Amino acid sequence: MSNNPTVHMALLHHPVINKIGDIVSTAVTNLDIHDNARSSRTYGLSSYHIVTPLDAQVELVSRILKHWRDGHGARRVPNRVDAMNLVQVSRSLEEAIETMAAESGLKPYVVATCARRREGTVNYGQMRDTINELAKTHFFLLVFGTGYGLAEAVLNGADAVLDPIGNPEDWNHLSVRSAVAIILDRLFGIRD
Amino acid sequence: MSNNPTVHMALLHHPVINKIGDIVSTAVTNLDIHDNARSSRTYGLSSYHIVTPLDAQVELVSRILKHWRDGHGARRVPNRVDAMNLVQVSRSLEEAIETMAAESGLKPYVVATCARRREGTVNYGQMRDTINELAKTHFFLLVFGTGYGLAEAVLNGADAVLDPIGNPEDWNHLSVRSAVAIILDRLFGIRD
Repeated sequence: MSNNPTVHMALLHHPVINKIGDIVSTAVTNLDIHDNARSSRTYGLSSYHIVTPLDAQVELVSRILKHWRDGHGARRVPNRVDAMNLVQVSRSLEEAIETMAAESGLKPYVVATCARRREGTVNYGQMRDTINELAKTHFFLLVFGTGYGLAEAVLNGADAVLDPIGNPEDWNHLSVRSAVAIILDRLFGIRD
Repeated sequence: MSNNPTVHMALLHHPVINKIGDIVSTAVTNLDIHDNARSSRTYGLSSYHIVTPLDAQVELVSRILKHWRDGHGARRVPNRVDAMNLVQVSRSLEEAIETMAAESGLKPYVVATCARRREGTVNYGQMRDTINELAKTHFFLLVFGTGYGLAEAVLNGADAVLDPIGNPEDWNHLSVRSAVAIILDRLFGIRD
């Protein structure tokens, strides 16, 4: 494609909901960092922002990144460095978007994800078309939630919300790591 | 579809290769069990076999399964029970195939996966066609490797090997959890 889109992803630890629908901050999961960084690298994303407002969590992620970029992890698994170099930490979704806009000079197009059925979601073919149409003027930010999913305010504030994967009336409890991989593949993978 | 295929997956901890190509047995990763069980449940698989020849690893998996099927984990995350009920442990790929054949009365069709470029691999459209054609007479077993991938003997013994995901000439270090999710989605997900 002559017109490669600029794509980022963000994994939100706040604001997300818990089992009973309250807004919470979740803890960072080490393997989320690795798996989503590797998926981001595979599909050519520009960055993967881990979003948490908590100082202790920001510090934890920074230590993990150091280990895998410059430390023992980098020496043991050199290919991981490439993936880990895509990871950034932001205090909020807004801060992540500001960073991306400043770096690229493009306008944001925010695409949220949700495992539940809701009104007005778009399918993956529609989103591929939108990305192609807007790729010269916009960057695309795919937003994923931890816990029991993104807070309603994030979903309502997005430019689009993608259809759930699978059949929510049957069972919709994929890991967020698996959902990230599937959605990147549906939007940017080879289709044969 | 009137003719739903019977599909299983197996994650092999032996025989797989390490970084320098030697045949090894890898350790079971707790999160592989969860993520792959959840992906298997999402896409309607009949079982997910964890294959390890090591007594201590069989025992470890059994204890994890008990926690999530009947123990504290099952009470805390009830939807996980459905996924964990798909997990079985086998000592070898052959044992897993025998179990599946005995349960279904169908013939095995073994589909291996490989992150490297190799001769004669099939694309995902071809595999969907094959599955549709053979679904009345065969069950399908998708085989994934831990470590640095399945041993050559497993790849050579399979009925088909799928194309790698992404571009191996660029970077091919997805987590096996992500590869499982993507491949199940390419074969059994909605295509829009």
